[in-house]
Amino acid sequence: METDVDVAVVGGGIIGLGIAWEAIRRGHTVTVIDPDPAAGATHAAAGMIAPASELHYREEHLLRLTLDSAARYPEFLASLTWTGIDPGFRRTGTIVLGFDGADRQALADLQAVQARNSLVVEQVSLREARRSEPMIGPAATAAFRAPEDHQVDPRKLAAALLAAVTSRGTLVRAAATGVERDGSHVTGVRLADGSVLRAGSTTIANGLAAAGLAGLPCRLPLRPVYGDILRLRVPEALQPLLTHTVRGLVRGHPVYMVPRTDGTVVLGATMREDGSNAVSAGGVYQLLRDAQQLIPAVSELELVEVLCRARPGTPDNAPLLGQVEGCDRLLIATGFFRHGVLLTPTAAAVCVDLLEGKPGPPGLERYTPNRFEEG
Amino acid sequence: METDVDVAVVGGGIIGLGIAWEAIRRGHTVTVIDPDPAAGATHAAAGMIAPASELHYREEHLLRLTLDSAARYPEFLASLTWTGIDPGFRRTGTIVLGFDGADRQALADLQAVQARNSLVVEQVSLREARRSEPMIGPAATAAFRAPEDHQVDPRKLAAALLAAVTSRGTLVRAAATGVERDGSHVTGVRLADGSVLRAGSTTIANGLAAAGLAGLPCRLPLRPVYGDILRLRVPEALQPLLTHTVRGLVRGHPVYMVPRTDGTVVLGATMREDGSNAVSAGGVYQLLRDAQQLIPAVSELELVEVLCRARPGTPDNAPLLGQVEGCDRLLIATGFFRHGVLLTPTAAAVCVDLLEGKPGPPGLERYTPNRFEEG
Repeated sequence: METDVDVAVVGGGIIGLGIAWEAIRRGHTVTVIDPDPAAGATHAAAGMIAPASELHYREEHLLRLTLDSAARYPEFLASLTWTGIDPGFRRTGTIVLGFDGADRQALADLQAVQARNSLVVEQVSLREARRSEPMIGPAATAAFRAPEDHQVDPRKLAAALLAAVTSRGTLVRAAATGVERDGSHVTGVRLADGSVLRAGSTTIANGLAAAGLAGLPCRLPLRPVYGDILRLRVPEALQPLLTHTVRGLVRGHPVYMVPRTDGTVVLGATMREDGSNAVSAGGVYQLLRDAQQLIPAVSELELVEVLCRARPGTPDNAPLLGQVEGCDRLLIATGFFRHGVLLTPTAAAVCVDLLEGKPGPPGLERYTPNRFEEG
Repeated sequence: METDVDVAVVGGGIIGLGIAWEAIRRGHTVTVIDPDPAAGATHAAAGMIAPASELHYREEHLLRLTLDSAARYPEFLASLTWTGIDPGFRRTGTIVLGFDGADRQALADLQAVQARNSLVVEQVSLREARRSEPMIGPAATAAFRAPEDHQVDPRKLAAALLAAVTSRGTLVRAAATGVERDGSHVTGVRLADGSVLRAGSTTIANGLAAAGLAGLPCRLPLRPVYGDILRLRVPEALQPLLTHTVRGLVRGHPVYMVPRTDGTVVLGATMREDGSNAVSAGGVYQLLRDAQQLIPAVSELELVEVLCRARPGTPDNAPLLGQVEGCDRLLIATGFFRHGVLLTPTAAAVCVDLLEGKPGPPGLERYTPNRFEEG
């Protein structure tokens, strides 16, 4: 079959760009299709590489992927050094704070789960927490430390990936409308102008928009989980405000602050399923309120950006990752919900392994894209 | 003396544009000088035409100006109808709410001052206030109504003025560096490129930047009073959220919400003298917190804009308006602090009267620009 390219990737967010770059560096010709690359959830994401403190109940199964991906990050980033764009990788550990009794209980319960999974999360005294982070507020009553959490700046990482992909592959700034099929074979991608890009294999990695593509062999049950997120600048007199990521449960409300090397802090993030993709006044209020409990000096910071993006959620909030039975030359990689940045290197490795005919990692069937189909 | 123009106006905010338009419609040739017209305090202002509820203690003397200006507004706006730009004038009365005992006392004291000055501000029951504004929050314990307060949309008014001034006068998009003098005569304006615009009379109306102009006969003691201000959009299901301006003292913190016809609400404004022209995270938090006390449904609104601008304050927070003794062909019109939009028609009339050699209104000497000079 004649093709235009070995690999077509629909979607130029962090996941699509990561897959494209992985395919390129393994020698494939690659085209990424996105009308506005890195402008969706990637643009909002805080970029915590934090398998430990991002662990949620009933998501333990994801640890195999998240720990694998965190371990892959240094090499993945090293492969991009030649672009000259620093992706902002920092070995910032996390300090987790609790406030009322229910916060303390929830965090202690979570710590037990973390310990059972061999994650390094230790309870520390508030005195010790304040030795690392003197700005912690007076209302905190419990503290945990997750020293192995790190961070990347998703905007910078996306910029590096975009530079790499456009330099050694092709970016088509257009919307995809669907996949082309010849029986059980996917043969390429149809673009909004009606043209078709013929590809040896096609990967669907355009987040929520994947659900709207024509020609897929199964329904992709994605739903938007909106998040409001703020960027604050620390005035010079207060720098550095933080040297760790500081997060917590503030009377039941989760909130995090991720300090960047450029003197800004990312403050996030709400979880809204109210159907509004506009920044929520109530959401911004809650974030500022709760962040001031973590770090009262938040009130002294400059508010430099307020935005909202949608995370691609699924019925079990686990990704849709892998092949769909009975349909070949097609890979799905979406539904990464809160974990898109963290899971990028592993999603990239899994997808490129599969399109090369190699086996996926053990347990991948848990994420089969058509697992919610009946019968 | 040969001149390029009858009237040079330094500053293209609402005050400068208002003066320029007044001079143009009285038959003068006018040039306005501003590198970025209507981008300063005008861009932030809520636009309340509210002599009654904007009255502050020890500012009673300003009532002569504010009431005069409010009365001039309809004719002033009518003179701009031909531009086709609707300046958003609305006869929105104000409802003022108090929460704790100190709020109630402060508002009752203020109402006595307002009544003494023949301003129509009446205490009403909360039941009655809620008949007009059903979204008022449960924590309010006192309500007043100021039915004669109105509003204009300063961005639209500035756009109309700018259209009028550029159509029938000249706008120079450049910075002024100072005034040119020949002894006691001001002969024109020097621009950043070194050129000079020769004018029959020169009016200084560039807000805080006036203090930095060379060649003025006196020091202008202006200081920035920063204000954070938000624009919220009311989702369709909640429209109209308000039909009055709703403001209040929320446990000592002043806050206001001005509803626009386009379904947005202006929520303001902090008063900061901390030297920071960046949006304050703590300021935004306070505004959202207090606005939710006025109207709890604020949490359901979309946050569409967050910005900060500086008001030009003076030692007595009254304007610097008029001539400086011993210096002719020069007028000063700055330091309007919180009242720039409200006072525009009167500032324009006063300035053009003076430059035409007519007397200023009674009491104008109170605002003499050099009143803070010693000896």
